Parts: sequence; C-alpha cells; structure tokens
Amino acid sequence: MADLMILNAGVLQVTAERAELLDGCDIIVSGKRIEAIEPTGTTDPSRAKTVLEAAGQVAMPGFINTHAHVPMVLWRGLGEDVNLDSWFNDYIWRLEANLEPEDVYWGMQLGLLEMIEAGITAVNDHYWHMEYAARAVEKAGTRALLGQAMFGANGLGQIDETAAFVQRWDGQAGGRIRTILAPHAPYTCDDEFLRASAAKAEAIGSGIHIHAAETREQTQASLARRGRTPIEVLQDCGIFEAPTVLAHALGATPGDLEILADVRARVGIAHCPKTYAKLAMGFNNLVELRALGIAVGLGTDGAVSNNTLDLWESMRLTAMGQKQLLRDAEQLTIPQALTIATRESARVYGQADELGDLAVGKLADIILVDLGGAHHFPLNSVTASLVYNARAGDVRTVICDGRVIMREREHLTLDKDEIIANIAPRLERLRRRENAGNIQNYEP
Amino acid sequence: MADLMILNAGVLQVTAERAELLDGCDIIVSGKRIEAIEPTGTTDPSRAKTVLEAAGQVAMPGFINTHAHVPMVLWRGLGEDVNLDSWFNDYIWRLEANLEPEDVYWGMQLGLLEMIEAGITAVNDHYWHMEYAARAVEKAGTRALLGQAMFGANGLGQIDETAAFVQRWDGQAGGRIRTILAPHAPYTCDDEFLRASAAKAEAIGSGIHIHAAETREQTQASLARRGRTPIEVLQDCGIFEAPTVLAHALGATPGDLEILADVRARVGIAHCPKTYAKLAMGFNNLVELRALGIAVGLGTDGAVSNNTLDLWESMRLTAMGQKQLLRDAEQLTIPQALTIATRESARVYGQADELGDLAVGKLADIILVDLGGAHHFPLNSVTASLVYNARAGDVRTVICDGRVIMREREHLTLDKDEIIANIAPRLERLRRRENAGNIQNYEP
Repeated sequence: MADLMILNAGVLQVTAERAELLDGCDIIVSGKRIEAIEPTGTTDPSRAKTVLEAAGQVAMPGFINTHAHVPMVLWRGLGEDVNLDSWFNDYIWRLEANLEPEDVYWGMQLGLLEMIEAGITAVNDHYWHMEYAARAVEKAGTRALLGQAMFGANGLGQIDETAAFVQRWDGQAGGRIRTILAPHAPYTCDDEFLRASAAKAEAIGSGIHIHAAETREQTQASLARRGRTPIEVLQDCGIFEAPTVLAHALGATPGDLEILADVRARVGIAHCPKTYAKLAMGFNNLVELRALGIAVGLGTDGAVSNNTLDLWESMRLTAMGQKQLLRDAEQLTIPQALTIATRESARVYGQADELGDLAVGKLADIILVDLGGAHHFPLNSVTASLVYNARAGDVRTVICDGRVIMREREHLTLDKDEIIANIAPRLERLRRRENAGNIQNYEP
Repeated sequence: MADLMILNAGVLQVTAERAELLDGCDIIVSGKRIEAIEPTGTTDPSRAKTVLEAAGQVAMPGFINTHAHVPMVLWRGLGEDVNLDSWFNDYIWRLEANLEPEDVYWGMQLGLLEMIEAGITAVNDHYWHMEYAARAVEKAGTRALLGQAMFGANGLGQIDETAAFVQRWDGQAGGRIRTILAPHAPYTCDDEFLRASAAKAEAIGSGIHIHAAETREQTQASLARRGRTPIEVLQDCGIFEAPTVLAHALGATPGDLEILADVRARVGIAHCPKTYAKLAMGFNNLVELRALGIAVGLGTDGAVSNNTLDLWESMRLTAMGQKQLLRDAEQLTIPQALTIATRESARVYGQADELGDLAVGKLADIILVDLGGAHHFPLNSVTASLVYNARAGDVRTVICDGRVIMREREHLTLDKDEIIANIAPRLERLRRRENAGNIQNYEP
C-alpha cells in the first residue's frame, strides 16, 4: 500500500544541460520518499491511501529557499527606496529592537504560509528566537535549516547558547528540521568570535550560515580595516572547514573566488537577486562562480528587502540579471535557471542527495503546478514557461516529506485567519522606529 | 441613475511625488466616465444599475501598455536564450512568415484575455492585419491604439494602405479604438520611407508608433551607415512633428536626449524592461529622461521576448532596473513607479487628460485589486505592496470605458475556451521555422 499517488502528471527532469518534461507519469510515494515514477496506466490507484489527479499539471521538486529571515515578513514595506546603510541603521535594526519571541512564532508561520503558496518546501533561515521558528516549522509540515543569529557584540556566551539550540533541534520533526550555527557576518563578528564559531561548529558537527561580502564596499572596508577581504577573514578563521552557506558574496574578489573554488565541496552561495536589485547592490557573476564548480542556490532574503518570499521571482531575476550583467542573452539559460532552482539549491542547502530532484529514493518534496492559465498558452515550451511565466498562484498542491500540506490551494497545516489574528495586535509595537533602540550599527 | 457604483474601495491617488490611498470611497460611474468619488456612506447604492462591493480592495487606473505586439503571444517560449540578431533572424522573422490574418484575430484575443487578467485596459499595439486586431478589441471591451506595421522594403504603397486603416478605425468601438501610423524602425525604413510616413501622418492627423535606438549597437551602426543616430534620423525625417510613441531608445546619445527634450510635448518613450533584460540589451536611464520632462510609459513588448503581458512585472522591473543601473536605491521610488504606470503611461498613450488617474470626469478604466493575500500581509505600505508584491492574480475586477469586463476574475467579454479551441489547430503551422521565408533580415 502506497501512501500517496500522483496520477498523470508531467514530471520535470533537470540536469545542468537539460530540462525536460516526462509526460504522463504517476508518482508513487511511500512514507517520506518517492518509491516509483511510472508511465500512467501501469499503476493501480486503489493501492494508495491518497490519490492526487494531476492531469495537465507539472510535478517538480519543491523550491528550496537557501537564505532567508522569514519572520521579517512582519515589517515588509517598511524599508523602501533607501540604500543599504540607511536600510540597516534607520530601519531594520531599529525595527528589530521591538522583536519578542512570540513574534517569531507567528511571523514564521506567516512567511511559511506565503512560501507554501509559492511552492517553497524548505528554507534555510537565519534569525532570532529560533525555537519559536522551529515550532512553526513543526506545525507547517515544511522543511527547514534553522540558525540562531549571533552578533559578536553580544559576547562569546551566545555561541554555547545557540549550539544548545542546534543540538536540541537537529533532526526534529521527523528529520524535517536541521540546524546550523549562524554568526551574522564578518562586519558584525570579529576574528575571535568567528574562530570560536568555527571551533564550535567542528565540535558539534554543525554547518555555518553567514553573510559575507554583501557589496564591493564591504570588501573595500574590510581590506582597509582588517587587511583582508571578508572571504579571506572567513577562510582565516576556519569557517570554511564547516559546511557553509554563504549569503551573497557580491563583493568577492578574484582571489576570493580562488578560495571559494578550493572549498567548493563544503561552501555554497545563496543568491537573492530581488534584494540586490532593490538595494542597488549589483549582481555577482554566477556564470563565473558556476564555472568554478561553486554551488549557487536561490534565496529570498528577508521580506523587508525582498518584499515577497517567492522563488519563481528569484529564479526569473537570477536568469535575467545575469544576461544583463554579462550583456549576453545566451548566458544563464532556462535549463541552468531550473538547475539552480532545484539541484543546486539542494546542494547549497546540504541535502543534494535527498532533495531537488524527482527520482526514486529521494525525499518526496513535490509541487504540482498548473500551466493552464492564459499567461502560459500556447505552451510552446514548458521549461520557458516555468522560468519566465509561472507565478506563485499557479502552484496548486504542495507535498513535503511525503505529506500533502496544501491541496488545490487549500492549506492543510497552517491557518491563515489564526495567523492574521495573532499578528494584528502586535503590529503597532513592531512598527515603532522612534525611541526604539538599535540592535547594531552598520558600519562595514 | 448611475450606471455603476464601486462601494467602499481604497482609491489610489498618484502624483509624481506622492502616491497614497484614499480609504473608504465610493466611485460613481455614469456612462463611460467617473461622475463622483465620495466617502462611503454618503451615496445611495440603489441609485446604480450595477453595484460592486469592493471592501478591502484597491481601486486604481487600469494599466496602459504603451508598446506591444500582442498577437505574438502565439509564439511565446520559442525564442529563448539568444541574442537580438539571432532572435530576429533565426526566430521572429521566420515565425512571422507563417502569420495569417485570422491568427491575429485569435492571438489578439488571447493576449487581451491575459492582459485583462493582469488589469491592463489599454494597449498601444504595433502589428499586422490590424483590422483583425481591431475586431478583437471591439469584442474584448478594452481600449487600444492600433498601428499597422510597415517595413520600408515593402514599398511606399503600404503607407496609403495603412493610412486607410487608420482613418477607417480611428474612434471606432465608441472611441475605445484609436489608430496610429506604425513604420517599424529606422533600421528597416530608409529616409524616404520615414519622410513619407511623417508627411502622411501630418496629412491625416495621425500619430506615429515606431521602434528606434533599441540598443547602443544600433546607434553605432546608424552612425556608421547614415552618419546620424537613429533619433537624429527620425528628427531629420520629420517623424517627431507627429505625436510619437518611441519604443525603447536604449541607445540614445546625450545629443539624442537634447532632441527628445525639445520634442517632449509630442514624443514619449515606451519602456519594456523584461524584454531588455531577457535580450541583454541594458537599460536606458529613465531618471535622466524624466528629469528632461520626457514622458516614459510601461510596455510589455511582444511575448516572444517578454513571455508575459504583465505590467505589474514591468513596473517592478522598471524600478529595480533603475536602482541597479544607477547603483542608488533612492532612485525610481515607489511613487515614481506608480506615476510611470498610471499618469505617464497615459501621456505616452496620448490620453493624459482622460486616462491614468481616478478623478471626476476621467474615463472609467478602473481595476479592483485584492491585497488580502498572504504575500501582502501585514499591509504596512499599500503603495510598496502594489509595486513590489502585487501579482496579476490579485486583480479581481476590471472596468473599461465604464463597463465591467472581468468581475471577480470571471471574464464577461472574451471566452477562453473558444480562444484556445481556435488557436490550437493553428499551432503546428505557426511554429514552423524551417523552410519558412524570413520577412526581414536584422542588420542594424
């Protein structure tokens, strides 16, 4: 008896050089894994506990958000049309001074709700009060890699505290939750703090999720102040000995790329193009990074810079951004964009063997996408439509870890009304910028 | 007795420096115009033939697509990951050799259907067999400015033919249809042809819709071949004596900007950022153009480069593109993006006094947008949400010329099933590239 059968779907198959649709397939799920993918007509639906008819829909791996601060959805729209220094000092770090633990529980649920509606089944999240985030993930039925953010200024004691979180929560929710150490960035953590983080990661077998070289200005400032680039600082401090998710790296120098190429077996880069565009940060050259074998995954960053948690949009902007950057429309092709969105994001997320590919034995994180809208017709190219036409609203059904969590756009785990009702009374407090403290000062 | 009342909407009010929501308004429509906008509670709904409850929805002007080739939706997804020369010579101009008049009728309906779903109520369209396009617009209930494309190579005789179209259809469909002369571009029309087009425009009182300076390479090629930039060629040939919609102008030189500033009372620029990004064409500097008083409107171009006909996406990419281009997140602000999308697009479209603003006496082209989705919550900034979060699927109801043409996402004028049924048998023929002719050769 199978737990789930998806009948008559087109199954997206992606490799670096090709992306194609396998038409007319049934996907059979047992427990949390894909047991078989068979031509429609050869399987017996009466063998399954749950059957999803998917004629005319595309089955593809759930999106993996490789860098986010999900509870920041609470402040979306509040840091607009300002540059990075003002964005940090006048907005984010004032707003975040208002944060209370329960805000994270409800903000995380809200962001997970939005992500489920967009077909995102896993998120690598870097924030505070992460036990509250973990409880939200338990409830949502999604997958997450959770790290408790640390600023050096708050002292070395944090490292043990967050390591305790890492150890308590790793593998929880039937393995859907994994954990990671999350020192914030080289510009907010000194060498001593970074070394201690790297040592702790080694001691407890954890990875590291960190921001670095977010802009070229940060790289210049780091060279001036520390005599080394942010990437060199991380290398020096032993960070790259751990499996590392590096957010951004837009300011990586040619020398930095050599370092990253050396550690590519463990270090991947999260790419968040909507945030980069909105904050006028430029783009890094993904074609170069990928040619060096460095994994690049898609991210949304937080919603105060990105406004939405939508990886369809990130995928599209990734492809278009590279074409513009390199002034060559042949770069970052449709198969490459789909590879980044699936297999490569799984690699950055640290589960390349389990996620990002619909194949027998993989974890069943599957989304069903309806390409029947007028904005897809005629469907001359399914893969072009997925990259350039699809919208979050085209996602009909979301399965994570073998369980249906949204069915024909009906949520089966989270309750939107409950979430809104719990967030509404918090908003007045959360939106205060005046008289609030400032949790950090951005001075790259 | 009013024809239509929209009750309890938030009404978006936009000027160049501000964009704000007027909460709790009733909009009263008589015939094709807005008769009044009153605070909710002061009007009597029993006075209206049609009443739309809009609590929680935002009323804003219907989007105006200032440059498109709508029937090209038929080929979407067929010209991917190639640069402009190959895009023209290996794809578009081969595919278009297959075009038959009835294809335009059904392709136009399909594109109008998609645009209605995205809240676009008017389109400036540059294509062939435009009497078929006009019949589709009549049926759809939308507004259009239609121009029959002309290549110089097809001879001067075309000009009289398309002028006859212009005169026959201008003001039809109760004024919803306007017409325009549409010589293709300086690189496909020689000076003689452009002069003859300008003279004809003057003779019949028509405007002109033309592509020019699409890339810097075109400007270089024009200088080498003709000793003048494409903008100088148009100026020389008298094109700018007519009200002109200039598509793209990415390759405008500083001298060209002076020309455009001089003729800004008559000449506006259509900006199609998704196409520019996909074809790696760069972006023009809209901040500079706008500082010179030159109107800039949003466009989608055709769907073979743009993939979708969605001005939410164009608006967002316009703002983000300028921030990236200028490396300054304070540029192209939210109020400016909304101004471009509404008032400025109306100016480029040639109906600044009638469209692009919800005010008493204006034509009633109104869309109702639901910002109740999880991707908008909390609604800390309505205007930020409209620019950075809204999706075509958030548009609930569309009114054009005082008539409801989509209500709660149900189409009241076009029939999607009928459109698909009529297009499906055409697709095999339309998709042929081999052995087809080539209607032009791109050689800037």
